[in-house]
Amino acid sequence: MKDSISIHAAPKPSGSNKKLERCTPKQERSRAIVNAIKQAGLLILKEDGPSKLTTTRISDRAGVSVGSLYRYFSSKEEVVAAIYEEQTKDDLAFVERVTPWFDALKKMPLEVGIRKIIECSIERHRSMMSLHGEVYLKSHRDYSLGSQLSSSLLTTTIRDFLECNRDSLLINDLDKTAFLIARGLSGMLRMTLDEEPGYIKDDSFVEELVLLFTRYLCAETGYKHSIEAEMKPKGCPDWIDAAI
Amino acid sequence: MKDSISIHAAPKPSGSNKKLERCTPKQERSRAIVNAIKQAGLLILKEDGPSKLTTTRISDRAGVSVGSLYRYFSSKEEVVAAIYEEQTKDDLAFVERVTPWFDALKKMPLEVGIRKIIECSIERHRSMMSLHGEVYLKSHRDYSLGSQLSSSLLTTTIRDFLECNRDSLLINDLDKTAFLIARGLSGMLRMTLDEEPGYIKDDSFVEELVLLFTRYLCAETGYKHSIEAEMKPKGCPDWIDAAI
Repeated sequence: MKDSISIHAAPKPSGSNKKLERCTPKQERSRAIVNAIKQAGLLILKEDGPSKLTTTRISDRAGVSVGSLYRYFSSKEEVVAAIYEEQTKDDLAFVERVTPWFDALKKMPLEVGIRKIIECSIERHRSMMSLHGEVYLKSHRDYSLGSQLSSSLLTTTIRDFLECNRDSLLINDLDKTAFLIARGLSGMLRMTLDEEPGYIKDDSFVEELVLLFTRYLCAETGYKHSIEAEMKPKGCPDWIDAAI
Repeated sequence: MKDSISIHAAPKPSGSNKKLERCTPKQERSRAIVNAIKQAGLLILKEDGPSKLTTTRISDRAGVSVGSLYRYFSSKEEVVAAIYEEQTKDDLAFVERVTPWFDALKKMPLEVGIRKIIECSIERHRSMMSLHGEVYLKSHRDYSLGSQLSSSLLTTTIRDFLECNRDSLLINDLDKTAFLIARGLSGMLRMTLDEEPGYIKDDSFVEELVLLFTRYLCAETGYKHSIEAEMKPKGCPDWIDAAI
């Protein structure tokens, strides 16, 4: 956490932080209060869990009055949103700063690198879910790093990583493969957060994802194209027709 | 297309069809007008393309006055939304009705079946994009079949299909694998529509997806776990820490 927080620079998911927009904390004191509230909220979430989060507890722990809290946040949900925004901003700044991590990735053997990419994505979702699962599952799209990273840094890095391992790869198109790993994985995880959030916490799901991508990259399939099935139901839409 | 359309049964994406909600077409005549407007809009989109779609042209072709059109739709965009809703309703009804297609899938060799599943998903996106690409790319989540299919029909069907091919599979957990194919694929395609829509029209992208899933299902990888890289940048967040 930083000592002072620039409220203006924080990403603003739709519908949240109306109070923050109205009441711009231009002075050092305002910023310190907002910062203290966010830090207090974060500590309560980490130490006591979301069920213990109330505006009274947050303001107590931050050492400010409940009235002060309500000057900047209309509800505890807005405090949680601000904590997620802050976390996302910090994570984004970190990822864009740490070239050593990206350099390390390039030097990794293929499966190790792929595993790191998948584990990092999953671990970030786990870490965010552990703060306030209910809020995160509803709003995880607002706190995605991949869609905010400058000029598709992730896809480019993964493309470079694949390029370094070119000889081991059984793929045709580095750009499409890098996109599938960088962004396709992210799409899969978003869908999993929406429909099977339990899988995110399940290590055997991570193993399935590692298998999916490592086999794609460097495995030969025993299967060859087979005869097409002839069956075609009556009155089928164009898109089924085209696919059968 | 059906002769008459039940407006009430249509899914209502947020923000659209306010007029439809206010002005319920209880009488046969109202339903016939709404239906004629949707059919006229669909024909213009298919024959002349989205740039030729205007409320005047729609009402001319539907044989109703512009005033009648505005009784039910506030803009041409609302007509497009209603066309997409109707299309989605038809596709959904079709998919839920055609057990022959699902039975055919079960009898297909593994790679053929996987290819069909991928091609069907892609073809439906292509077909929807061809009507009005700009509107579809903005709103494709509202017209997803998978999330509306009754009791995860798609995941269950794919699970059954995998079960029929169990001997050829190198996977551990049928449920997770079926989820990755049924819904993970859908998450990947949504991300692709958002970030690289050109790939949806690109046949070589379809081939990459076929490779991704067929190799996962029935390929052996030459790779084994290798030594973990030791490098860890300073001040890295918990989720990077956990993954390194």
